Amino acid sequence: METMEAIRKRKALKNCLCDREIEREKLEQILQAAGMAPSARNKQPWRFVVVQGKENVERVAEKAFVGFAKGNLVVKEANVLIFAFANHEENVFPDGAFFYPTDVGLAFENLLLAATDLGLVTHPMAAVDQAELKKVLGVPEGERLIIFTPLSYPDPGSYDEAVEERQATSTRKSLSEIAYINEWGKPF
Amino acid sequence: METMEAIRKRKALKNCLCDREIEREKLEQILQAAGMAPSARNKQPWRFVVVQGKENVERVAEKAFVGFAKGNLVVKEANVLIFAFANHEENVFPDGAFFYPTDVGLAFENLLLAATDLGLVTHPMAAVDQAELKKVLGVPEGERLIIFTPLSYPDPGSYDEAVEERQATSTRKSLSEIAYINEWGKPF
Repeated sequence: METMEAIRKRKALKNCLCDREIEREKLEQILQAAGMAPSARNKQPWRFVVVQGKENVERVAEKAFVGFAKGNLVVKEANVLIFAFANHEENVFPDGAFFYPTDVGLAFENLLLAATDLGLVTHPMAAVDQAELKKVLGVPEGERLIIFTPLSYPDPGSYDEAVEERQATSTRKSLSEIAYINEWGKPF
Repeated sequence: METMEAIRKRKALKNCLCDREIEREKLEQILQAAGMAPSARNKQPWRFVVVQGKENVERVAEKAFVGFAKGNLVVKEANVLIFAFANHEENVFPDGAFFYPTDVGLAFENLLLAATDLGLVTHPMAAVDQAELKKVLGVPEGERLIIFTPLSYPDPGSYDEAVEERQATSTRKSLSEIAYINEWGKPF
């Protein structure tokens, strides 16, 4: 798929999933794409936990998900969940600055686009109980969940329609609202 | 360009620039790609300042750049600089949580991939004096610089070679170092 098409087509879908298992090879490609992102001083602070299989997904969703994620079909019926963590202490520079939340964002967009390119549905979110999630996944104390997504194959019968509907209803700021030229406030 | 190729080809190049002006249409496509990223509760917290033209680029670089960015050819000779800001107060949720550094990372990877897809060279970095940068660009107090990049056309004679060299010398963690399956510490 063309890069621009993947960027446009990546939409957080809430329905139209099917329970087809995602192949290991595709998960590898997706994780490799994530790992190719740039990061401050090339620290590659991202660590991913892949949860696969109905029982595993249900266990994590039941124990750790809150708010929006809790009752969400796209989460409960996902074939795979991928959680992105980073370690605060290991990624703070001597002057106190840190960039790992942004670095993980850079990597995670690669992950979402690679998944879209491979025909999968994603839905990035962060609504979890961090302590419960870390307990259920055995994650060490110093790690922080930054973002996660379910992944599923879409129902081929309704996917294109669902993407089109999401694109039509997606409210996006215009360029003049988000971009300035040469100085703040001067619309691009 | 295929999505996976853009992800692989996006490399922070330090040389092989040429001084060809980047067309406005391409900058629009790049910024639109950025604006299509997902964000927590669709807040779209990103704001971009595009600096174009030799004099403007030099003025900003001279006043605000520090450390790595200061003496860097890819910055000093860039045709365009794009700075990504977000506002802390406007993007903190009532419970104190905030996701804008990650959201800007998601958007910025789209920006970098779109630029790569359009044949441009980028080099994401963050080494600026925030106060000086905000002064020279007229950015309000509450905004924070999250990340920025120079953009240039590459010298067509040396681009492919430079990308290959960067790919060959790029040190990336292996999948087993960054990905676990079902629980922390169990290599994917």
